[in-house]
Amino acid sequence: MKNDVNRQFRLKSRPVGRIKTSDFDLVKAPIPEPGAGEALVRVLYLSLDPTNRIWMSDMDQYMPPVEIGAVMRGGGIGVVVKSNTPAYQVGDHVSGLTGWQDYTIAGEKPELRMGVIPKGLPVPLPAMLGACGMTGLTAYFGLLELGQPKAGETVVVSAAAGAVGSVVGQIAKIKGCRVVGIAGGPEKCRHIVEDLGFDAAVDYKSADWKKKLAEATPNGIDVNFENVGGEIMEAVMARMNLFGRMPLCGMISGYNTGEPMRADFSPILMRRINIRGFIVTDFFPKFAEGARQLAEWVAQGKIKHEETIVDGLEEAPTAVNRLFDGQNVGKLIVKVADPESQ
Amino acid sequence: MKNDVNRQFRLKSRPVGRIKTSDFDLVKAPIPEPGAGEALVRVLYLSLDPTNRIWMSDMDQYMPPVEIGAVMRGGGIGVVVKSNTPAYQVGDHVSGLTGWQDYTIAGEKPELRMGVIPKGLPVPLPAMLGACGMTGLTAYFGLLELGQPKAGETVVVSAAAGAVGSVVGQIAKIKGCRVVGIAGGPEKCRHIVEDLGFDAAVDYKSADWKKKLAEATPNGIDVNFENVGGEIMEAVMARMNLFGRMPLCGMISGYNTGEPMRADFSPILMRRINIRGFIVTDFFPKFAEGARQLAEWVAQGKIKHEETIVDGLEEAPTAVNRLFDGQNVGKLIVKVADPESQ
Repeated sequence: MKNDVNRQFRLKSRPVGRIKTSDFDLVKAPIPEPGAGEALVRVLYLSLDPTNRIWMSDMDQYMPPVEIGAVMRGGGIGVVVKSNTPAYQVGDHVSGLTGWQDYTIAGEKPELRMGVIPKGLPVPLPAMLGACGMTGLTAYFGLLELGQPKAGETVVVSAAAGAVGSVVGQIAKIKGCRVVGIAGGPEKCRHIVEDLGFDAAVDYKSADWKKKLAEATPNGIDVNFENVGGEIMEAVMARMNLFGRMPLCGMISGYNTGEPMRADFSPILMRRINIRGFIVTDFFPKFAEGARQLAEWVAQGKIKHEETIVDGLEEAPTAVNRLFDGQNVGKLIVKVADPESQ
Repeated sequence: MKNDVNRQFRLKSRPVGRIKTSDFDLVKAPIPEPGAGEALVRVLYLSLDPTNRIWMSDMDQYMPPVEIGAVMRGGGIGVVVKSNTPAYQVGDHVSGLTGWQDYTIAGEKPELRMGVIPKGLPVPLPAMLGACGMTGLTAYFGLLELGQPKAGETVVVSAAAGAVGSVVGQIAKIKGCRVVGIAGGPEKCRHIVEDLGFDAAVDYKSADWKKKLAEATPNGIDVNFENVGGEIMEAVMARMNLFGRMPLCGMISGYNTGEPMRADFSPILMRRINIRGFIVTDFFPKFAEGARQLAEWVAQGKIKHEETIVDGLEEAPTAVNRLFDGQNVGKLIVKVADPESQ
């Protein structure tokens, strides 16, 4: 499908609770014309991430909130279709903050820069948003740099069937840890154990999940890779060992509430836990190293990548809610245009 | 005053809320007889610390709770009055977990070991429980090892007029930081600025203290040495800078409540804060280094040590509440016996 307009989701109002399509205007803008040193990029895939919900809000956050009336911020992959710069050749696949729209501009200026994806990769393009992209790097650096898991230790990860959690668990297995995933529902729990090789799964929707968490972590918990926050985080922290490490990647359970994300600090004190909040770009200088290692593990079959692909840009505001409703497995992606049809 | 009995405070019931004298039995036990390899120690000074309240409770904690019927655990300094071991000579001053009693046994066995205080120190004995003892070491290692303050950064410390907080602020000044203390009431605030050299003080009992905290930290907060928890901790965390460090030493505001000590985790994520819970004994292998440096700073007048001394063992259960009522300045100590009268 080729458009002669640039459809854009512009933020109309800050969502209260669940994200609604009516929080956005779907605008038909003209396709932008690249200036000198710039290129026009056709967006192919959009990455849907929990952090999208943060950007829509005006809560305290690590980038400026998306302004009302502005195009919704989002990561994605596109193809260069017109270029006025040798930095981006027509046909190049590029990744970066494309926004929720059909077309964007890449350029030589720092704020317009996008990464050019090497040709001939052994994984499909959407995996470059997932296990081999920012998602995989989030898991890689958060777990290895901050979690510092040692062979034989117990690693717990929440939202374990999700894009980041599924990679965290698989890396922890590569490192020789006992890996316990927390996920919602029997199918996700089956999946992370049988398909991804986790040692155990705890279904937080089951009545006795705290008891099952205790059974699954008989030696306590050394590393908690935290994606969820709230009650699940508290239950995990209550089982953490002395000098445990806790990379704090996200607290998705709190993003829709608009409330402070309070939880008990006392285990931090009593067990001398080391908590580190992070976002993947903190590790930018090491991205090449991480990407190389992830690609190698994926090529060796040690990390299985999986994507859930929703068809059509217009689905983005609805689809992103799957992350918050617990309906998603693997990397959630919106296909905006067919890469073969360019 | 020389007793022919060993008065002991034994824990009768776990305090609910504020500590009451009736939570203890004051028992007259016989003076213990040291066995082979043991020495009898007359307790001179008891260190009163917020952690006493934790030990009285059965909350999740870093040592076993004091059992009902057992002598209350507490740090102190004593003098050896009878000895069956060359490790402890009669007249030696020793420090360790003496308990809330007149006499204790020191010995060669690991669980009975006490530290012998070098003779001829340039500071009075009670300072060896404060700025030159465990309290000073708590400030030293928590701030320098975990807080890692750099010259020009802003360091905030809560309970700033207290035993640990007052040393934290003075060390941070030595390291060239802007130092802001949070304390209760105008006199404590005057004291930490005028007497101890803090750059600013914020009186958390004043109505507009959050505004004053903002004014006192125009460049945000790089290091938060946390002693209090709760609302004060949340207000400080809300002003922390990217990659801020937060040694978590205590949360005294929560110890009397029996409730989980909940606070907002979102700044940890958004500002990528590094929180580390600790207790001073985590740094045991480096104690000698820290003690040497603290003694030097005290001798140079760069760290002022101050002690509030309450007279009489029988006052311990009442006096300890000063820590929780905000009535205490400096190191709170109970004098059990006169060191000159031995």
